Amino acid sequence: MSTSTPDPADPVFRLHLGGKMAVASTVPLTSREDLSLAYTPGVARVCEAIAADPELADDYTWVSHTVAVVTDGSAVLGLGNIGPRAALPVMEGKAVLFKQFAGVDAVPVCLDTQDVDEIVAIVRALAPSFGGINLEDISAPRCFEVERRLDEALSIPVFHDDQHGTAIVVLAALRNAATLLNRKLGDLRVAVSGAGAAGVAVTKMLMAGGVNPDQVVVCDSKGIIGRHRELTGTKAELAETTNADGRQGDITEALRGADVLVGVSGGQIPEAAVAGMAPGGIVFALANPTPEVHPEVAARHVAVVATGRSDYPNQINNVLAFPGVFRGALDARATRITDGMKVAAADAIANVVAESLTPEAIVPSPLDPRVAPAVAEAVAEAARRDGVARR
Amino acid sequence: MSTSTPDPADPVFRLHLGGKMAVASTVPLTSREDLSLAYTPGVARVCEAIAADPELADDYTWVSHTVAVVTDGSAVLGLGNIGPRAALPVMEGKAVLFKQFAGVDAVPVCLDTQDVDEIVAIVRALAPSFGGINLEDISAPRCFEVERRLDEALSIPVFHDDQHGTAIVVLAALRNAATLLNRKLGDLRVAVSGAGAAGVAVTKMLMAGGVNPDQVVVCDSKGIIGRHRELTGTKAELAETTNADGRQGDITEALRGADVLVGVSGGQIPEAAVAGMAPGGIVFALANPTPEVHPEVAARHVAVVATGRSDYPNQINNVLAFPGVFRGALDARATRITDGMKVAAADAIANVVAESLTPEAIVPSPLDPRVAPAVAEAVAEAARRDGVARR
Repeated sequence: MSTSTPDPADPVFRLHLGGKMAVASTVPLTSREDLSLAYTPGVARVCEAIAADPELADDYTWVSHTVAVVTDGSAVLGLGNIGPRAALPVMEGKAVLFKQFAGVDAVPVCLDTQDVDEIVAIVRALAPSFGGINLEDISAPRCFEVERRLDEALSIPVFHDDQHGTAIVVLAALRNAATLLNRKLGDLRVAVSGAGAAGVAVTKMLMAGGVNPDQVVVCDSKGIIGRHRELTGTKAELAETTNADGRQGDITEALRGADVLVGVSGGQIPEAAVAGMAPGGIVFALANPTPEVHPEVAARHVAVVATGRSDYPNQINNVLAFPGVFRGALDARATRITDGMKVAAADAIANVVAESLTPEAIVPSPLDPRVAPAVAEAVAEAARRDGVARR
Repeated sequence: MSTSTPDPADPVFRLHLGGKMAVASTVPLTSREDLSLAYTPGVARVCEAIAADPELADDYTWVSHTVAVVTDGSAVLGLGNIGPRAALPVMEGKAVLFKQFAGVDAVPVCLDTQDVDEIVAIVRALAPSFGGINLEDISAPRCFEVERRLDEALSIPVFHDDQHGTAIVVLAALRNAATLLNRKLGDLRVAVSGAGAAGVAVTKMLMAGGVNPDQVVVCDSKGIIGRHRELTGTKAELAETTNADGRQGDITEALRGADVLVGVSGGQIPEAAVAGMAPGGIVFALANPTPEVHPEVAARHVAVVATGRSDYPNQINNVLAFPGVFRGALDARATRITDGMKVAAADAIANVVAESLTPEAIVPSPLDPRVAPAVAEAVAEAARRDGVARR
């Protein structure tokens, strides 16, 4: 049997029969009186009020607790460009995690186009129906332009989770790992392996969170990114802002003397390269299901190891970030998500386990119920501090 | 206080606080094992299966029980072009009625564009996320083109409720009224007042259901539609197919000797015009909240009266049709909604009260729980008969 043929005995397929989500009414609908309040004729009064003052939609519709989980199916998990239909189970999963962890009502929106202009136009047109836009599994570099243009065009939060969700949790984990090792973020030499959506966002987030840009080196599949290479777009930006020493070469060269490796590439990194890191270092090998370096191999050479997997300690899981980030942004009716809100989210995640740090527990469990409320509160506060909150 | 300022003591606004709907997970999400089945890594196997065979999305996602309720806010209730934000309370109401009466999970999609090409492109792109498209409150004549182009482009049901929901219930009501009066549909002379979305659809539905086109006359705000007028589009079609006698004039002329008046115009019809109808006739005055002719006035001249209002007998309410129509279409995995499916829906609605017909009960109550299951079964059967069912 091929791996892509459903096996009815497989608990994954059994669980997915009929999908994973439903819509529920939150109002009674059993009497004529109920109908006349929730639907015609009563509802007309609510429509008229919103027509006169559009901000009332926040109070009298579900938008204030609703997010669209939007994908074009171009970069789904590690499966690549499998299209919008095949992406839907992931978006449903995301939607139910939003609900479970933060009470956010999320709706999967899988788009049958991969054209940047069309995606932007469609999401702009959809915006009146939702309080926020969670972009998901859109391939780089298109994801950067889609997010930037939507963030400019819309006055509701737009957040590409593959970038910022990962980046927030990496920053949280690095803060706690540095604390544990009695190091300062600003002193760490960091190598990022991977310059896709996650790699770019992780790099920017770490710098926004206190890592010294001069001490950051980013590698893509062709090696270290720097001014020595002919680059455009986001990678050209990275060449300007990182790699102050002008290093050239491959990941082995990037890791020579580094304190931190963040792997978000999916490629493999040889043990010899990790062995060249400074003593007492930190490895986050986040590729799933096969980390860039096996955690047991990494542990021979560094002091703290994290992966994206649930079967090893220190799982860097976006679910620690996105539910609380949107809950906080929606609670504050934020018009966008600022770097300050992302850093606040990272701090909140880190703080949940700050009193009980061990090398095997630098981040909370993905199921820790304290995380989302703490993140939401921190994000809402940061939104107010950054002047993007509407309440 | 203006009618558009929310009064916190108004039960309608109290009920609408926070909106009327939510999303719910239908799978457990409390253990690591739960997460690994519903989300990564398990979900990847479902994605791969759907990528290999897109039809599996019907089995392993929520599309098979999901409908998008799509509007551009251009013709909302009787309020007119109030835009997508102000339309959302109606779409939420529709969504919760879908759930309440037929277990269909519906999602409001309010579009910030009123351009036909854009609406068509957006809904096409959204189609992978949904099992059906319920178009709602889109103004005529744009609604005709939007529906026609989407019906051609998509292989899921597309249904403009303002047209066909109303038309189905009118046909059901007329069948029962004719039975009650011992008349045959094919013998009735019918005047339709209004040639917007509902008027056009009612006219076509009545003819599909057995009314003789030669005996139908349609009026718009300029009078009787016929070959004597210069018309385009849908009205030109009506001029060809109806008004075989070549009548000219206003609604009074249209009603002279008619057995049936169907008012779907919102305008007022003078009592004298109704008095000119044949004895023992039928008046459906469906404008809401103010019927074209007051039901008590109409009752002086005809034998059976119906309105769109819940406070008079015989409420012609779309909720009798749309939940069951989509439930049946989704159950049969219909690729579209045929005239046969609509006529079957009308028959099913009529049959629910066929054994207990009185002039005050020619249609079931909107809350009658027998209606949606009966409609669903009849629609699914008709889909199979018409060759548009995928199961």
